[in-house]
Amino acid sequence: MMHPQDSPTHVRILIACPDQPGIVAAVAAALYGLGANITESAQHTTDPSGGAFFMRIACFMPSPIETEACLSEAFAPLAKRFALRYELSLGHQRQRMAIFVSREDHCLVELLWQRQNGGLHADIAMVISNHETHRAAVEQLGIPFHYTPTGPDNKIEVEGRQLDLLYGHADFLVLARYMQILSPRMIAAFPNRIINIHHSFLPAFSGAKPYERAFARGVKIIGATAHYVTEELDSGPIIEQDVLRINHGYTPADMKRVGQQVERTVLARAVQWHTEGRILVHDNKTIVFP
Amino acid sequence: MMHPQDSPTHVRILIACPDQPGIVAAVAAALYGLGANITESAQHTTDPSGGAFFMRIACFMPSPIETEACLSEAFAPLAKRFALRYELSLGHQRQRMAIFVSREDHCLVELLWQRQNGGLHADIAMVISNHETHRAAVEQLGIPFHYTPTGPDNKIEVEGRQLDLLYGHADFLVLARYMQILSPRMIAAFPNRIINIHHSFLPAFSGAKPYERAFARGVKIIGATAHYVTEELDSGPIIEQDVLRINHGYTPADMKRVGQQVERTVLARAVQWHTEGRILVHDNKTIVFP
Amino acid sequence: MMHPQDSPTHVRILIACPDQPGIVAAVAAALYGLGANITESAQHTTDPSGGAFFMRIACFMPSPIETEACLSEAFAPLAKRFALRYELSLGHQRQRMAIFVSREDHCLVELLWQRQNGGLHADIAMVISNHETHRAAVEQLGIPFHYTPTGPDNKIEVEGRQLDLLYGHADFLVLARYMQILSPRMIAAFPNRIINIHHSFLPAFSGAKPYERAFARGVKIIGATAHYVTEELDSGPIIEQDVLRINHGYTPADMKRVGQQVERTVLARAVQWHTEGRILVHDNKTIVFP
Amino acid sequence: MMHPQDSPTHVRILIACPDQPGIVAAVAAALYGLGANITESAQHTTDPSGGAFFMRIACFMPSPIETEACLSEAFAPLAKRFALRYELSLGHQRQRMAIFVSREDHCLVELLWQRQNGGLHADIAMVISNHETHRAAVEQLGIPFHYTPTGPDNKIEVEGRQLDLLYGHADFLVLARYMQILSPRMIAAFPNRIINIHHSFLPAFSGAKPYERAFARGVKIIGATAHYVTEELDSGPIIEQDVLRINHGYTPADMKRVGQQVERTVLARAVQWHTEGRILVHDNKTIVFP
Repeated sequence: MMHPQDSPTHVRILIACPDQPGIVAAVAAALYGLGANITESAQHTTDPSGGAFFMRIACFMPSPIETEACLSEAFAPLAKRFALRYELSLGHQRQRMAIFVSREDHCLVELLWQRQNGGLHADIAMVISNHETHRAAVEQLGIPFHYTPTGPDNKIEVEGRQLDLLYGHADFLVLARYMQILSPRMIAAFPNRIINIHHSFLPAFSGAKPYERAFARGVKIIGATAHYVTEELDSGPIIEQDVLRINHGYTPADMKRVGQQVERTVLARAVQWHTEGRILVHDNKTIVFP
Repeated sequence: MMHPQDSPTHVRILIACPDQPGIVAAVAAALYGLGANITESAQHTTDPSGGAFFMRIACFMPSPIETEACLSEAFAPLAKRFALRYELSLGHQRQRMAIFVSREDHCLVELLWQRQNGGLHADIAMVISNHETHRAAVEQLGIPFHYTPTGPDNKIEVEGRQLDLLYGHADFLVLARYMQILSPRMIAAFPNRIINIHHSFLPAFSGAKPYERAFARGVKIIGATAHYVTEELDSGPIIEQDVLRINHGYTPADMKRVGQQVERTVLARAVQWHTEGRILVHDNKTIVFP
Repeated sequence: MMHPQDSPTHVRILIACPDQPGIVAAVAAALYGLGANITESAQHTTDPSGGAFFMRIACFMPSPIETEACLSEAFAPLAKRFALRYELSLGHQRQRMAIFVSREDHCLVELLWQRQNGGLHADIAMVISNHETHRAAVEQLGIPFHYTPTGPDNKIEVEGRQLDLLYGHADFLVLARYMQILSPRMIAAFPNRIINIHHSFLPAFSGAKPYERAFARGVKIIGATAHYVTEELDSGPIIEQDVLRINHGYTPADMKRVGQQVERTVLARAVQWHTEGRILVHDNKTIVFP
Repeated sequence: MMHPQDSPTHVRILIACPDQPGIVAAVAAALYGLGANITESAQHTTDPSGGAFFMRIACFMPSPIETEACLSEAFAPLAKRFALRYELSLGHQRQRMAIFVSREDHCLVELLWQRQNGGLHADIAMVISNHETHRAAVEQLGIPFHYTPTGPDNKIEVEGRQLDLLYGHADFLVLARYMQILSPRMIAAFPNRIINIHHSFLPAFSGAKPYERAFARGVKIIGATAHYVTEELDSGPIIEQDVLRINHGYTPADMKRVGQQVERTVLARAVQWHTEGRILVHDNKTIVFP
């Protein structure tokens, strides 16, 4: 059975503008004028007077929407009147994700399984890795695998090759335990479109070796954080976080295993929300309409 | 600092009607016509074609709303056009709750503490109990306490007295571990306005002695359920549920203690949502807009 | 790095006997006499006077333990003195599991991934299925796959064939979403050695179609239960349970997807505890020493 | 019904020593020699060869234990043989706690309620506050309340007065949202006997204003940490942590309210474990035997 998200009549709209009265009425009227039936709506304002306004609407149109054009026409006056930015995603346009991965495979396996099981509203366009380890597992599912080994001296060159692979073929990137730091050039090419999983409960233990440091500090809970990548390492907008309990008996290796459980869950949730157009970024924070 | 919920310009609207295109647009237009700034909106439809539609809107009006009258005028045409039922709650009209309690006090203590701490957007109009146990704790906070001892023969008479106390003074009832079964008469007087906390994870262990039965079955998790009271015992619409972990070492007494922790949390959450106008009932289920 | 569990000097001992003073001292003395260093010990008594006593000990021996013989000698006097039953598992003897699966693969995928990642202290001896669906995924990992199609008339015959496959090759069975009810004969062949995952929070919604029934009842939390299989359907000793939150917007299909998340986690945890010798069964309940 | 913890025949023993074979056997033999029936035992070793060994035992003695003397005699040889330190707590000796509190009362209310409900295996010897706010609530329960206002110039003097109140009357201190930093003198007087609740998920947001900083960082989860107080601020051994979920709609005030929920739960759990002799400190970390 096709998920409603994938129906050619399904449209999702993300909106951001300065808050003022009348936005909801104008947007709803415009959609009604197009014959839309709104099935989900959610909104957030940072402050009713002078704050920023955010909204997500999902609706069914009376007939399949081939392109964004007809919607754009209806939204142009709104954009002008309310200084409103909007982003559309159409049911038949599945986003294309590129997965970056190094040796650890728990996040990759999770995303591949979600895809097999129909839980992913996106296509996996390719997997890029600095190791050959996962080629077979990826290719047997018919997904292109690109090996881009990275050394201390070829970083710029390798990223150039990766960008060549990505341009026109991927809408967003998922760093599924990819142990390389992206350059500003790559980040600029996919603004708020690179999702990373950090293996700790940010801002605690940002940086490397979080489990060893968590062990040393004697924490009682292990967390993981999915966030958009920005130039400032481990400081981009947080999308999702979760935790699992541990106790004094856990070694760093045990903590890592627990961490993998929570990492894959948190990353999968973040990817799902991203592909369903549920996330807005404002002021280095996310607004998530789940 | 006054909570926005309590501002005299704050209005919350719950809406239910058959689903069709145009509802959101019409409601938003009506509110815009009144100068409202919508700050929260959420909706749910059981089925976009032919289903039931539910919506919650919170907004600030340009000036304090003394009565429901002016809003009613704007909503009358909508009610007619969409066969729409709506319920308003005004910022300056705090709901009045009556708490029913027997001997166990953990839920009562929680609600009293929430009130002291400003976490409760409602007034506690009275506490009614079939025991004198909690009179002092209640009265010292300036809350009326009514002792209505219940025996096997005076149930009808006692409920009559309770109804006399309640009429005109309480908008909804909270059964905070009240160990008497309400009669259909009382239930009919407060339809979907009586919140009960059931000390188990319904529908598991409905009825009496859930902890003893949970112990006997060897469950690994203890839950609690807040629900609206209907004539069918323990089968009313579920508002909220939560759980805590236990293990083989827990005696029924330990399980009861854990249960109290989760009961008070779950009940407090249900009461908060009710008082903020976040709950709709449909088909013996709740729609909660948190 | 080899996990200590798999070291040839590692021994795990499960003990059950009527409670009385002196058991811990006698067991610890016997192990000390063998040169053992106890690294984990946990115990439980249902009642200090006249109750049942349970204990788990893990220890390192001074040299590799090839067979149970030398330990048996030391434990024989204890068994006699305290009417004590014990079960040994040796580090170099990995238990062999047989996985039964039908069409849904989330639990199978989880167990296969745990195996690949070194998180499973057991060998997967075979996968048995009434569908061919998962043959490729299983065989490419070098695990034997047996197709045993089951119809209304060949149940006894099929189970006979399955028992032939299992005898001498599997120590315990995992029903990883296997949609056939086992016969008493199969259950008797693996007493307290068949782990099932039930897709609900037992005892709520025991039996079939739990998600549809949970949807109809409007519950706010989805759970799963791993339990040992007994002749009474869905009523065997509960090993582990867990839950995830849902809300009014979840369809039965969404609830099933959430359920799969919690099912695979709960099953994996139960399997891990079983393979590490952490579970005792008493009075249709489990004692789990995690 | 008296809790077994409070029985005059109940003894709890915490043990720490370098790990080596024979400790469990020797301790169990010594207790058996005294006629003890061990009902709980748990242990932890940082490393079986050359690590540190920790153990907790709870047992019932054949007759009430008036003083530690008779047990000390039996333990003296063990202390010598294994370089073993031990700590006894006797069922009839309830620990005496002093609660320090400032204006916020959620942690105080929780501890008072636990006491009323029999959930606290300790006596509240006194409440000390730098504000008069909570005098009535405390004194009506028959608990002494001491007002020790603290200014910038009288810190040493005030702590001197507090120490006079505490010496001989309190076994451990609970900082239930006490907004003063203790001096090294006070900390030295109660080593690993001062429990603080930090209103964040340490090590994230250590120091002041954690909710404002959590809001600014856009975290999705609010935590709290109970820890023993050491001279290094917010860096003492962590006893317990927990979290609750929030989203983008939470203001710092909302986050504070959520934080209070998790703070009181976490603190109560830490206090309970401390009073039941379940916590050992090693290497600035805790070993908790729950």
